[in-house]
Amino acid sequence: MSNITPAEHLAEVLSRFEDAPDSRLAEIMKCAIRHMHEFVLEVGLTREEWFAGMKALADIGHMCDEKRQEFILLSDTLGVSMLVEMINQMGAEGTTEPTVFGPFHVEGATPRQMGDSIVVDAMDADEPLTILGEVSSLGGGPIEGATLDVWQAASNGFYDVQDSRQTPLNMRGVFTTGADGGYEVRTVRPVSYPVPDDGPAGALLHATGRHNWRPAHVHFVVSAPGHKTVITHLFDSESDFLDSDVVFGVRDSLIVDMNGGRCDYDFVLEPTA
Amino acid sequence: MSNITPAEHLAEVLSRFEDAPDSRLAEIMKCAIRHMHEFVLEVGLTREEWFAGMKALADIGHMCDEKRQEFILLSDTLGVSMLVEMINQMGAEGTTEPTVFGPFHVEGATPRQMGDSIVVDAMDADEPLTILGEVSSLGGGPIEGATLDVWQAASNGFYDVQDSRQTPLNMRGVFTTGADGGYEVRTVRPVSYPVPDDGPAGALLHATGRHNWRPAHVHFVVSAPGHKTVITHLFDSESDFLDSDVVFGVRDSLIVDMNGGRCDYDFVLEPTA
Repeated sequence: MSNITPAEHLAEVLSRFEDAPDSRLAEIMKCAIRHMHEFVLEVGLTREEWFAGMKALADIGHMCDEKRQEFILLSDTLGVSMLVEMINQMGAEGTTEPTVFGPFHVEGATPRQMGDSIVVDAMDADEPLTILGEVSSLGGGPIEGATLDVWQAASNGFYDVQDSRQTPLNMRGVFTTGADGGYEVRTVRPVSYPVPDDGPAGALLHATGRHNWRPAHVHFVVSAPGHKTVITHLFDSESDFLDSDVVFGVRDSLIVDMNGGRCDYDFVLEPTA
Repeated sequence: MSNITPAEHLAEVLSRFEDAPDSRLAEIMKCAIRHMHEFVLEVGLTREEWFAGMKALADIGHMCDEKRQEFILLSDTLGVSMLVEMINQMGAEGTTEPTVFGPFHVEGATPRQMGDSIVVDAMDADEPLTILGEVSSLGGGPIEGATLDVWQAASNGFYDVQDSRQTPLNMRGVFTTGADGGYEVRTVRPVSYPVPDDGPAGALLHATGRHNWRPAHVHFVVSAPGHKTVITHLFDSESDFLDSDVVFGVRDSLIVDMNGGRCDYDFVLEPTA
């Protein structure tokens, strides 16, 4: 090869994957490589910019440990995580809309009776809230035996796993519906909170003129036999940042009235084929 | 927003960069985000694959330290580094073709007289080689005062900076041309060598059916007042891996005959405007 073009160079790189034993890995890598090459060409990346990017990636990696995954935070703040949920959770019209899972879910939260509270550690700023409604099947009736895995940040803006002052599993609970499909969760009104900005992902947000806040929300994973699981939030309609969620998770249908200590919301699940 | 499309989601993400104070950073990030979103859609990335990618990036980051930059190695093996050189060093027809810089250059190599050897530590496998020729200006004559910064791996396949058994600055030298533009470097015939495969970048090569070898080469950075600097290699025409250099650096015009202890090559630099 001599004086080859960028297109010829790309073709050569892609051709090296012909013998890849894992065809899905090869497909993913070839698509990623094509987009990386197109990116370099479209912005006319200088060697100094490329090197700055290499350094930034290493810095992000060095911020990752058992408790902190800075690449996930970056993926969240660039809308990539939400896009992955959109295409993986895409549901039928009329079902509850999905949103991001987030990094703060914990397996094995306490099973609770309908009407129980998820508040273990009361805080001065707590404003009591009951979230209630029905879990139903799209085009069908109420679902018995549906599970609602619920979690949220405490009134100080931190999840239990971020905050050693909280009792483990504070603000978490797993509820199972009875024959009427109804659910009732006692909690406190959620608060908006910032995602961590003490690492490279936060530095990038601020360097590009963005804030690092999420609007107030409660997380739900709702699942039932014979139905698609939905991972979602309910957002407080009076929260700040509904129009600028740093991780792009807000959907109109998930914004609900939480005034007067009560929030009504019905979940609709899609039957599996 | 409700049931928004991936295109609407992308538009929302890009709109958040409107207030970015650094317009070049915003341009680079918006282009990168667009390509990341297109990649997710084109391969239909699953949540499990996304998470595996997040873990892989963290693992690559953890491999990086002062002596090892695994993201650069990955960029090299995906052809991204070579593409950056192609667009940044693009030269006029008739000038010496560029290739990758590589991670093993050292600033401050020993200045040497024409005809001197760069071999400090002799090795049993050494096969003496003299590389010689002229540095000239495209469309002009020989260049006086051109500098050739030369380095290569020793006959054991390691650069001095990788190998504590070698004397620092072994196999390196800086030569400056006289009035005739001629140069002459005494060295040993280069050997092919593997790039490191004890980290995630090497694991990815092997998982996709690729080897991790570079063909035998000698590095040159040739610069002169009033001319564009060229970063390049000379490759041994009898080396293995010329058709499958793991970092995609080979160009036909840089493959030279190194038989008989002698290698002739003339460098041609492009005058700056």
